[in-house]
Amino acid sequence: MQQEKYGIVVKPNSNNAIDIALRVINILKKNKKEVLVEKESKENYNNIIKDVGEFNIDNNPPEKIIVIGGDGTLLRTVMREKTGNSIIMAIRAGKRGFLLDVEEYEIENRVYDFINNKYTLIEYPRLQSIFNGERKSCAMNDIVIFTADGSLVKLEIFYNKDRVYGVDGDGIVISTTVGSTAYSLSAGGPIVDPRLNLIILTPLNPVQLHIRPVVFPINGILDINVKEDSGEYYLNIDGQEKVYSKSRSSLRIELCDKPVKIARFRWWENYYERLFSRLLSYW
Amino acid sequence: MQQEKYGIVVKPNSNNAIDIALRVINILKKNKKEVLVEKESKENYNNIIKDVGEFNIDNNPPEKIIVIGGDGTLLRTVMREKTGNSIIMAIRAGKRGFLLDVEEYEIENRVYDFINNKYTLIEYPRLQSIFNGERKSCAMNDIVIFTADGSLVKLEIFYNKDRVYGVDGDGIVISTTVGSTAYSLSAGGPIVDPRLNLIILTPLNPVQLHIRPVVFPINGILDINVKEDSGEYYLNIDGQEKVYSKSRSSLRIELCDKPVKIARFRWWENYYERLFSRLLSYW
Amino acid sequence: MQQEKYGIVVKPNSNNAIDIALRVINILKKNKKEVLVEKESKENYNNIIKDVGEFNIDNNPPEKIIVIGGDGTLLRTVMREKTGNSIIMAIRAGKRGFLLDVEEYEIENRVYDFINNKYTLIEYPRLQSIFNGERKSCAMNDIVIFTADGSLVKLEIFYNKDRVYGVDGDGIVISTTVGSTAYSLSAGGPIVDPRLNLIILTPLNPVQLHIRPVVFPINGILDINVKEDSGEYYLNIDGQEKVYSKSRSSLRIELCDKPVKIARFRWWENYYERLFSRLLSYW
Amino acid sequence: MQQEKYGIVVKPNSNNAIDIALRVINILKKNKKEVLVEKESKENYNNIIKDVGEFNIDNNPPEKIIVIGGDGTLLRTVMREKTGNSIIMAIRAGKRGFLLDVEEYEIENRVYDFINNKYTLIEYPRLQSIFNGERKSCAMNDIVIFTADGSLVKLEIFYNKDRVYGVDGDGIVISTTVGSTAYSLSAGGPIVDPRLNLIILTPLNPVQLHIRPVVFPINGILDINVKEDSGEYYLNIDGQEKVYSKSRSSLRIELCDKPVKIARFRWWENYYERLFSRLLSYW
Repeated sequence: MQQEKYGIVVKPNSNNAIDIALRVINILKKNKKEVLVEKESKENYNNIIKDVGEFNIDNNPPEKIIVIGGDGTLLRTVMREKTGNSIIMAIRAGKRGFLLDVEEYEIENRVYDFINNKYTLIEYPRLQSIFNGERKSCAMNDIVIFTADGSLVKLEIFYNKDRVYGVDGDGIVISTTVGSTAYSLSAGGPIVDPRLNLIILTPLNPVQLHIRPVVFPINGILDINVKEDSGEYYLNIDGQEKVYSKSRSSLRIELCDKPVKIARFRWWENYYERLFSRLLSYW
Repeated sequence: MQQEKYGIVVKPNSNNAIDIALRVINILKKNKKEVLVEKESKENYNNIIKDVGEFNIDNNPPEKIIVIGGDGTLLRTVMREKTGNSIIMAIRAGKRGFLLDVEEYEIENRVYDFINNKYTLIEYPRLQSIFNGERKSCAMNDIVIFTADGSLVKLEIFYNKDRVYGVDGDGIVISTTVGSTAYSLSAGGPIVDPRLNLIILTPLNPVQLHIRPVVFPINGILDINVKEDSGEYYLNIDGQEKVYSKSRSSLRIELCDKPVKIARFRWWENYYERLFSRLLSYW
Repeated sequence: MQQEKYGIVVKPNSNNAIDIALRVINILKKNKKEVLVEKESKENYNNIIKDVGEFNIDNNPPEKIIVIGGDGTLLRTVMREKTGNSIIMAIRAGKRGFLLDVEEYEIENRVYDFINNKYTLIEYPRLQSIFNGERKSCAMNDIVIFTADGSLVKLEIFYNKDRVYGVDGDGIVISTTVGSTAYSLSAGGPIVDPRLNLIILTPLNPVQLHIRPVVFPINGILDINVKEDSGEYYLNIDGQEKVYSKSRSSLRIELCDKPVKIARFRWWENYYERLFSRLLSYW
Repeated sequence: MQQEKYGIVVKPNSNNAIDIALRVINILKKNKKEVLVEKESKENYNNIIKDVGEFNIDNNPPEKIIVIGGDGTLLRTVMREKTGNSIIMAIRAGKRGFLLDVEEYEIENRVYDFINNKYTLIEYPRLQSIFNGERKSCAMNDIVIFTADGSLVKLEIFYNKDRVYGVDGDGIVISTTVGSTAYSLSAGGPIVDPRLNLIILTPLNPVQLHIRPVVFPINGILDINVKEDSGEYYLNIDGQEKVYSKSRSSLRIELCDKPVKIARFRWWENYYERLFSRLLSYW
């Protein structure tokens, strides 16, 4: 029987993250597991991570991946892991990181659980963008259209071909349930319970003062037409992939055929408490 | 075979509504249908509605009911029709009435369609309130807790036993998808697409400036505890049933076992257009 | 020369407040000042406050008054002190009380400062309501029109005869600068810097989704017409004086000719820090 | 006696604007006035505007300037007219242009009034930005700090040295009274009555959900410190002058010593009606 492989992805330039990574590698080795470190992570910590192989996340990711860092590290990892087959464990290193549920103090226990398949596997649906006919990476959190220079972005929004409304403003956020507590929330969107899978559309500072966020079924088709006289803008997927445009465009958003598989150890326990503790820590 | 019965409910004190009602009765009679007018409606228009029987909506409602009026008339009818068996057709009489989809100009065609079962039957889930252990009427739109005298209402909110947040303010709105475009929307809640069945919790002017509306699955249990030091308040169900209280209380909200059955003739055609046309007609 | 008199007002039913009051009385007596306790305060603590005279705040208030309690105690005191001549020192007893700037730990020093006129005298403008031609008490914080039963209140608002907008909703708040951080803030109004004297109009959950709070000069005239088809409502002045009405009415609001005189000891030091610390203490 | 000169500024690429300009030039010539067209405007309409002199707005603007176009044309003109001495008449050409009060149908009468000094001269205060020690152009509408790439901008805000709050978000808007109905309003700021001169601070989609817009006196000093770990951003003055930055920076905002002088013909008549008519025309 072939030995199960464990991949490690580490946030760059973080003393905390690399310390945790070395501890994790140690635990895995003690348990006789084969450890591979993601190529860029290894290069970032060249002199520190030794005696382990490496893997290329874009081609051939291992079945199990441990991400160590913040929300950005996790979002980048799941965006690049295009097969959708890897099961991801997420360890928070640093102050922020709402999507990562394993804390530093419990690493030993949780890595042991991960090895022994003691976790809840949550499949998070993602959103597929098709921008002017071209398929982009799937988004776990949100897809944002955002003015590139402060001038008015002008959009027309349709759900399953029905016109919802026009937005003349800084742009819009289209978010998943997971993303409902990120940028969408700051922009006035509702919090969506993690047991639901929905799309949330939140306009960004629209001139149309009467429009409001809208919650849609996740399996429909959202069309966003950028009007001819719109200002220039960015399409931004999960804060990781960015496309600049200034011409008339069409953005279609539909359910991505590859969800993200994340191993959760206590995700459901205290969702609202976690959420508001994090929000109130900003001051 | 027993003849199908058609019940009529008419908004009181409305020339427009009674005119429409007389036309509807006429069409039904021409089509050899048995027409019964709801007891109170008949009394309200005593000299005008003649030569038809009456029915008591609280006991023994007919299989098919035609409501003529505004949202209030419809909400009152479905609240009193406790069997959940009647199929309701809703004709708008007067300026407002977002829930009623049949317009005055098309009455002949739509009544004919209703007789011939040419409609889409939509089942709207409702919310059951249990206030201090006592079951109240089910709500199609919303359940509101609202300060009775302007003093601070103090609440703790739980979903499936998890604490969501505390609200110190004017109160809260718990709304269905249908209710999301009514009071909840004015209070800052999101618009929910009619293809979804959800619960929306919207706090009313809370002192806690960081809290936001939350969207929940409709089949869970929402517990709202009114704290000992809360000001006095009303529990208001669909704007139709009102309970005053000033003591510590518990309100449980769960899915009602009887949905409402409404015959829709073109509900899905243009939902967002209808919504915003209505909203912008206020000025 | 006549001896200066010091009046004491104490929040009822508060161990903390009466303890502070006894300490304050002691300090004043040691400094050979004549102390009078407000009639109702004295009755509330009949067996506890002894050997001091009393005064009637409605008739003949002393030149200097020390209020011990929360915002409600202060607002009630300034509302009843109709001459506008008394200088008020405000000691906070209990958790809340944003308007009261003297803390329990510093009572000795601040009472001594008050005796020796070492304070900044701030004059807070107030708002005069004229409801259907009848002059009401002046408001230091806010004047609220608020639905009495949850039905839609319908208002037309004018500033210096210009129509501002109509409000169909729960009502409105008209607040002073001081009141901008109270109810108006929860309802979506802006924070106004304490160096400004303004009127803030904030609509309460209006059906008209496009309307927004408006900031006006304090010396103009605001007319609020309650429409014929409005639901019943309360007029509520500073949370202290309440009038129920259900008929068509007119409310005029103008600058009150008697401001409130408050002795401040450190009001300006850290206004925003105080404000947000208080706001974030709600959770 | 020297003849009074009239300068003309015309929005580029607008058939409507150049038509109006030619009519205005005609009226002025018929009234024996010397007409000069602004250099760039003349170049833009090279073959169309003939037989008139030109002026350079950056050096030596005429005493009276007639601006024909939209809000952008007006804001650009007042920004470039650095002496602050010219009196500006503003004719609206095109759909938008809230700041311009003369309509096409009344040009003859209003130009005649302008010639005969029959207008109300309104002086609009402006805001001076000092960015990292360098004085920028004064803003009539607003000064915006705005993320350049969608990453979090991190700011600390102080008024007269007091910390107001931190903002982690898309940025902030600092607006004048005139600007309160422009971008600030879309971002959640209050409407400020035109009889007031204030500064309005409005945070843009902040992570700190509890912070709110703040209204300040116009003669104080607002300091905005961009933190070391902030994302890159633009400083944008009246949508006309833009500075990109990604380093730690300080922005100081104070009252500009040169207000703008605008000849108004009916500005006060119906301010709120104009405002909401314009807002509701977006759909």
